[in-house]
Amino acid sequence: MDQIRIIELKETLLADNDADAARLREELREQKTFYLNVMSSPGSGKTSCILRLVEQLRDAFRIGVLEADIDGDVDTRTMLQAGVPAVQLHTGGMCHLDADMSRQSLREIGSEALDLVILENVGNLVCPAEFDTGAVKNLVILSVPEGDDKPLKYPLMFEKADVVLVNKIDAMEVFDFDLEAFRGYVQKRHAGCPVIPVSAETGEGFAEAANWLKQQIEAWKGEVTA
Amino acid sequence: MDQIRIIELKETLLADNDADAARLREELREQKTFYLNVMSSPGSGKTSCILRLVEQLRDAFRIGVLEADIDGDVDTRTMLQAGVPAVQLHTGGMCHLDADMSRQSLREIGSEALDLVILENVGNLVCPAEFDTGAVKNLVILSVPEGDDKPLKYPLMFEKADVVLVNKIDAMEVFDFDLEAFRGYVQKRHAGCPVIPVSAETGEGFAEAANWLKQQIEAWKGEVTA
Repeated sequence: MDQIRIIELKETLLADNDADAARLREELREQKTFYLNVMSSPGSGKTSCILRLVEQLRDAFRIGVLEADIDGDVDTRTMLQAGVPAVQLHTGGMCHLDADMSRQSLREIGSEALDLVILENVGNLVCPAEFDTGAVKNLVILSVPEGDDKPLKYPLMFEKADVVLVNKIDAMEVFDFDLEAFRGYVQKRHAGCPVIPVSAETGEGFAEAANWLKQQIEAWKGEVTA
Repeated sequence: MDQIRIIELKETLLADNDADAARLREELREQKTFYLNVMSSPGSGKTSCILRLVEQLRDAFRIGVLEADIDGDVDTRTMLQAGVPAVQLHTGGMCHLDADMSRQSLREIGSEALDLVILENVGNLVCPAEFDTGAVKNLVILSVPEGDDKPLKYPLMFEKADVVLVNKIDAMEVFDFDLEAFRGYVQKRHAGCPVIPVSAETGEGFAEAANWLKQQIEAWKGEVTA
C-alpha cells in the first residue's frame, strides 16, 4: 500500500470565500479538471459510494480522491487499498472546507494531471453546505437509516445539492423510509435535483449515478455542451 | 395536540461562552433542574431515544424537551403527540447551541418548574461539541449504521460525552459494526465513559440508560452523593 500522506490544512479566513471559489473554478476549467464535492452526515457511506463511482469511471478518467477528516486516516487507507490515489486532509478541528483549503489540497494531489478530483468533505449535514469549496458540482448522500425527513431539517444542504444519492437501500426493509416523500422534500429544496437510490453494499444504482457524473465531467471538459 | 411553539434563537456571541455556561449550571443547580444535552449525527435516533428515556422517567420526574433544528418542527410534533412538554428551537442556520441560546430556551420552557430538561441539539457530530451549552451532562448517540469508526474521526464529540448510547442495535445483523472495537475507540477518547447498546425501536437497553440518567439527576439534586 502506498504511504499515507496527511495534509494539515491551514485556515485562511479569506474575506470573500465566494469570490475565491469562483476563481478556483475558473482555474479548474482551464486545466480541465472536474472537482466534485461529496457531502453527507457521518456514516452515510461517502467512502464506499466514492469507491463505487471510481470503479465505474476509472477506465475513462484519471481520478484522485481527497479525504477530509478532523482526525484519523481510515478512509484514505481504504482508498489506497483499492488502488485509488488519495490524500488525507486534516481540517484541524474545522467542520468544513472552503475554497482556499480546496486549493491547498488540489495542489497536493496534483490535480492538473487529473480529470476528476473527488472531495470527501467532513461528515456533517450543516456547515459544509455554507462554504463554496470551488467544486463544479455538489453530490449529497443521505442514507436510509437516517430517515426521510432530513431535507426538512437541513434545508441548505439540499438546496446546494446538484444530485442526491439515497444510499443503503438494501436496508430499506429494516427501516421506515418513504422514498417518495423524500423525493418530494428534496424537490421542495431544489426543484429538478435528481435523486438516485443506490446501495454501496450491492452496487445497485451506481451505473445511473456514474452516468450522471460522466455527463457532468464531459460537459465541463467541453466535450459536449452542458 | 398542543400548539407548536417555535422559538427563533438569537445569537449573542458572548466573549466567554465557557464562563456563561458555568454560570448557567450554577443557576440550574440552585433551582434543582438537571439539564441534559443530547448530541449525535442527523438520523441517529435522538428523538426516539429521548422518548424512550422519558417513558422510563416520567413518573419520577417533571420533564421537558427542547428540540433544536435549523428548520422544521417534526420532532416537536412527535414529542407533543406523546404528551411530552416540548418547545421547538430554530437556530437560524447555526450548527450548534451555546449557553446563552440554552438560557433563552430554558426560560421559554419554564425550567424552574421542571426536574429534567433534555436538549435535542442540532444533528451534527462536529460543532455542538465545541460549545458548552451549560448542560450538566452530555449524552452522545451513535447508531449502528453509521459505523464503529466514528470516535476516530470525530474526537471531540466523544471526549465531551459523559455517556454514549449505541442505537439501532436491532439492525446489527444488517451492518458490519464491531461493538468491542467501538468501545475501545470511545475509551481512547474518554476513559471510563459508559457505552450502552440500545434500540429505540424495541426498547432494549433503556432500563440501563434511564438508570444512568436517574442517578445523575439524583446526584445533581443533592438527594444522593455524586
